[in-house]
Amino acid sequence: MKNNRAKQAVVLLSGGLDSATVLYFAKAKGYLCHCLIFNYGQLHKKEIYRAVRIARAAGCAYKILKINFPWKGSALLDQKIRIPEKVNRGIPATYVPSRNIIFLSFAASFAETIGAQAIFIGAHAQDYSGYPDCRPEFLAAFGRMLKAGTCSGPGILAPLLHKNKSQIILMGAKLGVPFGLTWSCYRGEKNPCAKCDSCYYRAKGFKGAGLVDPLIKK
Amino acid sequence: MKNNRAKQAVVLLSGGLDSATVLYFAKAKGYLCHCLIFNYGQLHKKEIYRAVRIARAAGCAYKILKINFPWKGSALLDQKIRIPEKVNRGIPATYVPSRNIIFLSFAASFAETIGAQAIFIGAHAQDYSGYPDCRPEFLAAFGRMLKAGTCSGPGILAPLLHKNKSQIILMGAKLGVPFGLTWSCYRGEKNPCAKCDSCYYRAKGFKGAGLVDPLIKK
Repeated sequence: MKNNRAKQAVVLLSGGLDSATVLYFAKAKGYLCHCLIFNYGQLHKKEIYRAVRIARAAGCAYKILKINFPWKGSALLDQKIRIPEKVNRGIPATYVPSRNIIFLSFAASFAETIGAQAIFIGAHAQDYSGYPDCRPEFLAAFGRMLKAGTCSGPGILAPLLHKNKSQIILMGAKLGVPFGLTWSCYRGEKNPCAKCDSCYYRAKGFKGAGLVDPLIKK
Repeated sequence: MKNNRAKQAVVLLSGGLDSATVLYFAKAKGYLCHCLIFNYGQLHKKEIYRAVRIARAAGCAYKILKINFPWKGSALLDQKIRIPEKVNRGIPATYVPSRNIIFLSFAASFAETIGAQAIFIGAHAQDYSGYPDCRPEFLAAFGRMLKAGTCSGPGILAPLLHKNKSQIILMGAKLGVPFGLTWSCYRGEKNPCAKCDSCYYRAKGFKGAGLVDPLIKK
């Protein structure tokens, strides 16, 4: 399975527009991309289907990894916890403890196995206002931990880290990201709910970028 | 599920004698222990059954977390790769890329969810001759990463880190570890194979400690 001839990367793909933009960015940088999609007990599977469609649209290989968390503690995993409709400060109810730590750990295992030098993640400025495992200091510490704890020490690349949603959308538009395939809403209904945090930031982002969200236009 | 009244710990339990010793050590230090056992596609399930028996013998709660690695790359996951019979230097064929990184990441998620302050792992000197994710510098880096990337920043405790197998066995004997329930052999047959790395180190450890291995006596 090892292929050292091409520059290879593992890309964490969620189905949202951030990770889709990262995938197209990594491709544009010449990486042969292997997408890693998680089925981790999210309340809806729509984002997984969308992630698969994005990987296919980009012409990239993908793997879906299923995780059965034997504990709850997040609105994204537990139907008993209400998804917040207002944008709050502090740790959101949608925080899944150590989710990115777990995702990046699997990405490291995959990267080591296939000989990939890089792991791409779509963490960015707006995320780390609330989620501790999106902060720049966390990603840097994770990279140092991988240098110490793996044979190949793949690097963590977060090209959106210091961008806001509008800047990401503009970047994605230039790279040809199929935004109509992406899904941001925490609910998995036919259309975005337009009420959750994620819909709020997406709408604000498209507005700031001066672009129309193809999901809303439809 | 949060219980802040008692000092709580998540203990990674494999069914081997190292992690069993760590569990009894953590209990002796006054921690209310929650054992985390992984079913990650090992070639045999015997060590999982043994881990459950050890957790029960210690009177501790446990959770079994199933991981389906969609990639191979280790003799422990892939029947096509031969388990080495000689003790070799360098990275052993039994190395599972980033295994401890993944296990510790789940332990961090569990610890955050239940409010545990500590994560115990049985990594030790003999392991880190071969496995990069058992080295002291890795565990220290992992702890720093958790401080940056989680809300509660649980600490990583590896009380066996600088001990050899004989010292671990002497420590376990004093703590009352039921060594007869532990399983070290990479093969899951009725009796230990007495040929693999793991059997070699176990036999050497009991000999050095001047004790008889109850698994061999039977």
